[in-house]
Amino acid sequence: MFNNVISNLNIEICILYFMKIHNFCAGPSILPKEVFEDASIAVKDYNNSGLSLLEISHRSHAFVEIMDEARDLSLELLSLDGQNYTSLFLQGGASTQFLMTAYNFMKNEAAFLNTGTWSEKAIKEARLFGNVDILGSSKDDNFNHIPDYKMSKEYDYFHCTSNNTIFGTQINNFIKSNTPVFCDMSSDIFSRKLDFSKFDLIYAGAQKNLGPAGATLVIIKNSLLKNINENTPSMMNYKVHADKSSMFNTPPVFSVYVSLLNMRWLKKMGGITKIEENNRKKADLLYSEIDINPLFKGHAIEKDRSIMNATFTLNNDDFKESFESMLKEANIVALSGHRSVGGYRASMYNAMEIDSVKLLVEVMSELESKI
Amino acid sequence: MFNNVISNLNIEICILYFMKIHNFCAGPSILPKEVFEDASIAVKDYNNSGLSLLEISHRSHAFVEIMDEARDLSLELLSLDGQNYTSLFLQGGASTQFLMTAYNFMKNEAAFLNTGTWSEKAIKEARLFGNVDILGSSKDDNFNHIPDYKMSKEYDYFHCTSNNTIFGTQINNFIKSNTPVFCDMSSDIFSRKLDFSKFDLIYAGAQKNLGPAGATLVIIKNSLLKNINENTPSMMNYKVHADKSSMFNTPPVFSVYVSLLNMRWLKKMGGITKIEENNRKKADLLYSEIDINPLFKGHAIEKDRSIMNATFTLNNDDFKESFESMLKEANIVALSGHRSVGGYRASMYNAMEIDSVKLLVEVMSELESKI
Repeated sequence: MFNNVISNLNIEICILYFMKIHNFCAGPSILPKEVFEDASIAVKDYNNSGLSLLEISHRSHAFVEIMDEARDLSLELLSLDGQNYTSLFLQGGASTQFLMTAYNFMKNEAAFLNTGTWSEKAIKEARLFGNVDILGSSKDDNFNHIPDYKMSKEYDYFHCTSNNTIFGTQINNFIKSNTPVFCDMSSDIFSRKLDFSKFDLIYAGAQKNLGPAGATLVIIKNSLLKNINENTPSMMNYKVHADKSSMFNTPPVFSVYVSLLNMRWLKKMGGITKIEENNRKKADLLYSEIDINPLFKGHAIEKDRSIMNATFTLNNDDFKESFESMLKEANIVALSGHRSVGGYRASMYNAMEIDSVKLLVEVMSELESKI
Repeated sequence: MFNNVISNLNIEICILYFMKIHNFCAGPSILPKEVFEDASIAVKDYNNSGLSLLEISHRSHAFVEIMDEARDLSLELLSLDGQNYTSLFLQGGASTQFLMTAYNFMKNEAAFLNTGTWSEKAIKEARLFGNVDILGSSKDDNFNHIPDYKMSKEYDYFHCTSNNTIFGTQINNFIKSNTPVFCDMSSDIFSRKLDFSKFDLIYAGAQKNLGPAGATLVIIKNSLLKNINENTPSMMNYKVHADKSSMFNTPPVFSVYVSLLNMRWLKKMGGITKIEENNRKKADLLYSEIDINPLFKGHAIEKDRSIMNATFTLNNDDFKESFESMLKEANIVALSGHRSVGGYRASMYNAMEIDSVKLLVEVMSELESKI
C-alpha cells in the first residue's frame, strides 16, 4: 500500500525512510545522536579515566567541572549574567518546582495564567501555601489559545507556562510589571530567543530540549534569594541549593552530564538564535500542511501555535487506520496526541532534523492524494 | 619503590594490579561491570528498538515494563509481600526523604536515633514539622558506635539510619514497638539479610548498592498510606506516587533502568543471602588487617562496624605519603576518609570484588613491612 508513497518521495527522504526512526515523542524525547553516543561512552569509561561516569564521586574534580560548566553554559545560552542569576540543576522535575516556587515565595497571594494541564498543576500546589489569582484562562476553549491577561496590582509572583506540550500553544508576549515573573519553560527552553532578563525565575524539567529525565534546570535572580520564606525545608530551599553551588546533596550525575553534552551541541550549532531559525522552519512546514490539507485540522489557534508541539486531528476518523499505517511504514513514531486533545501531536524539539518533518508532511500529503 | 610490593603479590592480584582501577568511593560508587556495559548499550539503542532509552516516553510499554519490574524486584529481593508493601522509585535522594517522612507522618512527635551526619540532617528537617525526641546519640564519641536506646512511649514514627557511611557504623538490632519504624538504608540496602517486614518505611538513595545517582527507592507499608497528613503537596505525598504506580510525573528513566539492571545482577548472583556472605568476607578481611597492623586504627568500635564502609586512620601521619603513594601505584582510588573522621574509608559495596580488598590489605601489610 505504501509503495506508491515511496515512489513519490525524493531520494534523500527515501534513504531516511529506510534507515531512521522519526521520533516525535513529547518527552522524554529526542536528543542529538552525537549526544547519545558520547553519553553511551561515558557510562562505560568517562574521559578515559577507566571509570564509569556513574561510579565517580559527585565531589570529584571531574564531576565538579561538569556541574560548573553546565551551570555556566545554561546562563550563557540564555544570555544571562552570572552576577545577577544563579543556575541550579535539581531533581524532581517541573512538578517539584510547582511546589518549590510557592514554598519559597508565596507570602499571601500569587497570580497565575492558566494555559492548560501544567498551569493547573502549578495552581493546585500553590493553593496549599496561599491565595491564587488566575489572571486569565482558556479552559473553556480546551486551552486552544493563550488567554489575554493584565495585572492590576502586585502579587508575590506571577507564574506562567511558556509552552503547553499537550495543547500545542506557546506564549509570545510576556507581562511586564513589578511582580516577579516565574516561568515554567520545560518544553521550550533553549528553543527561541527571548529577553530572558525579564524573568525572575525560570525552570525546566530536562526531558525535552535540555537532556534526559531526572534533572531540572532552575535559573533564579540572585536578588530573589534574599526573599525566601523562613522555615523552607532544605531540599525545597533555593538558597540552600545556591549556597552549595547546586551540590547540597548528590545531584543526578548522569542527567546533568547529558544535559551538558546537549548544551555544548547547541552552542556549537550556533546557539538559540540559530536553533530558533531551524525550529521555525520545521514548524512552518508542518503548520502549512495542516492548513492546506483538508483532511487535517489544527487544535491551537494560529497566533498562539507552538513551534515545539503541533497538535492536530483528522477531520474524518475513517482515514485514521490508513494514516497510522502509513506513519508506521515511514518509521514515524510517538505521534499520538494526548487524550485531552486526541488526534496527533508532533513534537519538534531542537534535535529533530527538518527531514523528519518533511517526511511527516509527505505522508500527510500522500494520504490526501489517496482519498 | 613499589616494585618490592609487586613481587610479594600473587599472580592473580598482579594482573588485577595492572589492569583495573579499584574504586573504594563512598558514593556514587562502583556497580558491576556488566551493568555499566548494558546501560551503555541502552543509551545508544534500547533493546534493539532503534531508539535510545533516553528518548522513549515514560508512558511507553517499554518503560512501564522497566518500572514495574524494578518495583517488583525490589520487593522480591527484600522478601517483602506486594500485598502489604508498595515500592516507589522517586527523585531527590535521601535528603528529600528526610523531609517527606515528616511531611506525611509527623502529627506531634517523632523519635530519632542519632548515629551521625545523615541522622542529624533527618532530625533537622523533621523539626520543621513537629517535636523530635532523640532516643540515643553517639555524638560525644564522634559517632564511633551505635548508641543504646529504648522506647518508653509511642511516637508518630521512629527514624534511624541503618548504616553510617561517614563514620563506618551499622545498626544490627532494630527496635520492636508499636511505633512505625522508618529506616534510611541508603548505604546498605540489599547488602545483608534482615527481617525487612519489621520496617514500615524503608528508603535509599540509589547511588550505593542500588544504581546511579538520581533515583530513590521508597518501600512503604500499604497500611501507612491511609495515614498521610492532609494537605501534603503532591510531589511530597507517598499516596499520590503509590496511586500512580510511581509515575505521577516523569520518573528518572535512566537511573531506574540501571537500578533494574543492578537488581537483576544481584538476583542472578544469589540475592541478598549470597551477597551478604561476600560482603562479610570482604569486611572481615579488611578489619582483620586493621586490627593486626600496628600502623592503623579503626574508627568504629568492633561490635558496630559497618560491613559496607570501613573507616580507619594511620597512627602516625609520617607514613601518610608512603601509604598514599603505594595506593596510587596499586590503582586504588577514592579511599580518602570524610573530613569528620579523617584518614581512610574503604567502601566495599556489593559490586566490589574481594580481590580489590585483598589488594588493599596487601598494600597495608606491605607498608608495615617497609617500616
